[in-house]
Amino acid sequence: MIYVSRQEHFNAAHKLYNPAWSKEKNVEVFGPCANENWHGHNFDLIITVKGNPDPETGFVIDLKKLSKLIRAEVIEALDHKNLNLDVPFMKGKMASTEIVAQEIWKILEPRILSISKFGELHSVKLYETPRNYVEYFGE
Amino acid sequence: MIYVSRQEHFNAAHKLYNPAWSKEKNVEVFGPCANENWHGHNFDLIITVKGNPDPETGFVIDLKKLSKLIRAEVIEALDHKNLNLDVPFMKGKMASTEIVAQEIWKILEPRILSISKFGELHSVKLYETPRNYVEYFGE
Amino acid sequence: MIYVSRQEHFNAAHKLYNPAWSKEKNVEVFGPCANENWHGHNFDLIITVKGNPDPETGFVIDLKKLSKLIRAEVIEALDHKNLNLDVPFMKGKMASTEIVAQEIWKILEPRILSISKFGELHSVKLYETPRNYVEYFGE
Amino acid sequence: MIYVSRQEHFNAAHKLYNPAWSKEKNVEVFGPCANENWHGHNFDLIITVKGNPDPETGFVIDLKKLSKLIRAEVIEALDHKNLNLDVPFMKGKMASTEIVAQEIWKILEPRILSISKFGELHSVKLYETPRNYVEYFGE
Amino acid sequence: MIYVSRQEHFNAAHKLYNPAWSKEKNVEVFGPCANENWHGHNFDLIITVKGNPDPETGFVIDLKKLSKLIRAEVIEALDHKNLNLDVPFMKGKMASTEIVAQEIWKILEPRILSISKFGELHSVKLYETPRNYVEYFGE
Amino acid sequence: MIYVSRQEHFNAAHKLYNPAWSKEKNVEVFGPCANENWHGHNFDLIITVKGNPDPETGFVIDLKKLSKLIRAEVIEALDHKNLNLDVPFMKGKMASTEIVAQEIWKILEPRILSISKFGELHSVKLYETPRNYVEYFGE
Repeated sequence: MIYVSRQEHFNAAHKLYNPAWSKEKNVEVFGPCANENWHGHNFDLIITVKGNPDPETGFVIDLKKLSKLIRAEVIEALDHKNLNLDVPFMKGKMASTEIVAQEIWKILEPRILSISKFGELHSVKLYETPRNYVEYFGE
Repeated sequence: MIYVSRQEHFNAAHKLYNPAWSKEKNVEVFGPCANENWHGHNFDLIITVKGNPDPETGFVIDLKKLSKLIRAEVIEALDHKNLNLDVPFMKGKMASTEIVAQEIWKILEPRILSISKFGELHSVKLYETPRNYVEYFGE
Repeated sequence: MIYVSRQEHFNAAHKLYNPAWSKEKNVEVFGPCANENWHGHNFDLIITVKGNPDPETGFVIDLKKLSKLIRAEVIEALDHKNLNLDVPFMKGKMASTEIVAQEIWKILEPRILSISKFGELHSVKLYETPRNYVEYFGE
Repeated sequence: MIYVSRQEHFNAAHKLYNPAWSKEKNVEVFGPCANENWHGHNFDLIITVKGNPDPETGFVIDLKKLSKLIRAEVIEALDHKNLNLDVPFMKGKMASTEIVAQEIWKILEPRILSISKFGELHSVKLYETPRNYVEYFGE
Repeated sequence: MIYVSRQEHFNAAHKLYNPAWSKEKNVEVFGPCANENWHGHNFDLIITVKGNPDPETGFVIDLKKLSKLIRAEVIEALDHKNLNLDVPFMKGKMASTEIVAQEIWKILEPRILSISKFGELHSVKLYETPRNYVEYFGE
Repeated sequence: MIYVSRQEHFNAAHKLYNPAWSKEKNVEVFGPCANENWHGHNFDLIITVKGNPDPETGFVIDLKKLSKLIRAEVIEALDHKNLNLDVPFMKGKMASTEIVAQEIWKILEPRILSISKFGELHSVKLYETPRNYVEYFGE
C-alpha cells in the first residue's frame, strides 16, 4: 500500500461566530477571529489517497485527475469566497478549519472511488496558516 | 551599509472593488477578487532597514525593537481585520497589495528614525500569497 | 476524531556529550556536534492534539490557548537557552532532539487535558534543522 | 518509540511510458509526462527510522550515518540521472514516484539494521514536486 | 514606483553540454550535469514588473493577466519539456539557467507592454533548485 | 549582466555581548540574546555573484566551484562552532549577523576572482532565522 498526496490551495474569508451566542460571548471565546467584518487566509489543502499501484501505470491514482477533481468539487466552491456566507456545504455550520476539513472528506471520499480503481481517500489535511493546521482520517 | 530585514505576518479579509464603477465592471476587471462577500489572505510583510552598524552593538537597528514597532503600528491595525472596512489608513483607497505597501511605508518611515540612530527604512515587501507579492522603496 | 496542530519555535545552544565518556570518545561518536564550545539551532516544534470538535465552537482545542500553553511551559524554558546548562527538565540527560521531544511530551500531556475537554496530546514533532527531525507519540 | 527523519534530495530526468502500449495510448494516459524527450524534477526524499533511543547517545540512529548511507546507496544511483535509462534497480519498471519509493525501501531496510542496533526503517517519503508526493511504509 | 512579482513553475529535463567540445571535456567541465541521458529540475520562475499603480484599480499590472501571459508564452514552451531538444527559443544555445533567464526576458519584455499601460518588465528570476538561482535585469 | 546565487548553511552558537559593558547593561540592551550560556541558530547563507555568462559554458560562475569555495573558506570555519570563541576572523568583534556578513564578504571577494574570469561578488545575504536576515553589498 502506498500513500499518494496532492496539494491545492484557496484563499477565503471567514469568521468564527456562534449565532446562538451573544456578540460579547463570541468575542470572549473567539477573540479577533470573531471580527464581524471578517478576516481571511491562504488555505493549503493536502489530499492523501492510499492503495496499491496499478501495474500498468505505476499509479495508485492519476494525480492530474485527482487535482482536477479537487479543483472542480472543492476549490471552485471555496476559492475567493466567504466560508460563512458563500459555501453551500458550510451553511449552518461553524466555519472552523476542523469542520471545513470534515466537509471536504464527505465530498471527496465517494468521488475518488469513481476516478480510481486502486485508491481510496486516506486523509484531508488543511492548513489555515503555516503554523495552524488540522488533519482528518474519516472517523 | 548593511540591509537588515524583519518578517512579520497578518491575516486579513479584503475585496478589490472600485466604488466609482458598476458591479458588472468590477467583476469584469477584478474577477473573483471582487466577490462582494470578501475573501482573504495570510499576508507576509518584510521590512528592510539600511545603515551602518553601531560599533557598540553590531546592530544597524535592534530587530526586537523593529519587530515591536511593526507590530504596534502596522500589524495591530491589519491583523484579523477587513482592509476595506476596518483600517483607518486605508479609508477611501483601493485595497490592493500595492496600496497597502505604500501606506505601510508612510507609517513606518518616520517612526524607524525615532528608534534607530543608524538605520533608515529601505523597503516594504508584502506577500499576498506565496506567488504574488509587491515591493516598495518609497519613491 | 480530528488532529489539530500548532507550530512554535525556539533558538537554543547545545552539544552532544556523554559525561561518562572521554573527550576523545565523544568526538569520535558525535563528531562536530560534540564541540566543547557549543553550537545551536532554530528549532521548530509542532504539537498535535486529537479529539472530536466541540459542537459549540467547532474546535478540538482553542489554538490560541494551545499556543499560549506551549509558550509558557516549553518555549519560555528553552528559547535563547543552552539545553545542557540552562534547562531544569534536561538536567542529567543527553541533549539530543529525541530526548528533548520526550521531555516536552511529559510536560504538555497533562496540561493539555486541563485546557481542553475535547482533545488529548497526540504527538510532539521537533525539527532540529529543516532536514533532521523527530516525532514522539508518547510510547 | 521515537520516529527520526532525515531529508536528502536528488535531481533526475524521467518519463512515464509503458512500453507495452502504443505511443498514442501513452500520451492519452500520461499526457505531458510521456514526453519522449523526457522531463525532470528536484526530488526530496525523507527517510524515517523508528526505535528507542540508545541511552548512551540519546540517538535512535546517528543521523550523520543515516545521511551517509542514503547518499551512498540511493542518491549516488539517482542524482543527475535518468530514472528510465541509468538506474539499475529501476530497469524494467515504470518510473513513477510510487515505484521509486518502493525500490528505495527495498535497498534501505536491510542496510539500516546494519548501522543501528536501536532503529528500523519506518517510511520512505518522496516528493516529486512540492505539491505531489508519495509515502511507503513497507507493506 | 512599485515592484510587483508573480511566481510560476515548470518541470524540465536538460543537460549542460557544449557540442564544440569532446565528451571528455564536457564531463570534465560540467561533471554530472553533462550526463548524456539528461537530468531535470522543478524550476521556479519569478517575473517582476515595475511601475506606478493605476489609480482606478490600484494595480501596476493585473497579476491574473501577467500569470496568463507567462503561462502562454513561457511555461507552455518549457513545462514537461527537454530544454536542449524541445524548446524553439533554446535551439543552438547552452541550456544553462543563465541563458534560459535571458531568453525569457526577450520573450516577455515586449509582451508585458501590451497588457499593461503602467508597468514594464524589471527582472526575471529563475530557481533551478532551492539553492541555485539566477536573476536578470535586461542588461 | 546576470546575478547568480548559491545557498549554503551552517549551525552555530553565539551570544550578543559587549565586553566593554557591565553584565547588566548587556542584558538591558541585548535581552535574551545576551544569555551567558549562549544560544544558537541554523544560519542560511546566500552568496550572489554578478557577471556576463562565459559563451562556452553559459555560466557566470560554476556553481559547483562556488559551493566548494564557500564550504572551504566560510562554512568550515563556522559550522558547529561558537561565533564568539571558535572563529578566528570574529575575534574581538561583536558576533552580530551584520558583522558576520561583512567578514564573509572580506573572505570571499578576492577568492571569487580567482575561480571565475566572468564574475565578481555582488552580495552576502545571511539569515539568522527565517524572519531575521541581513544583506551586504561590500560598501
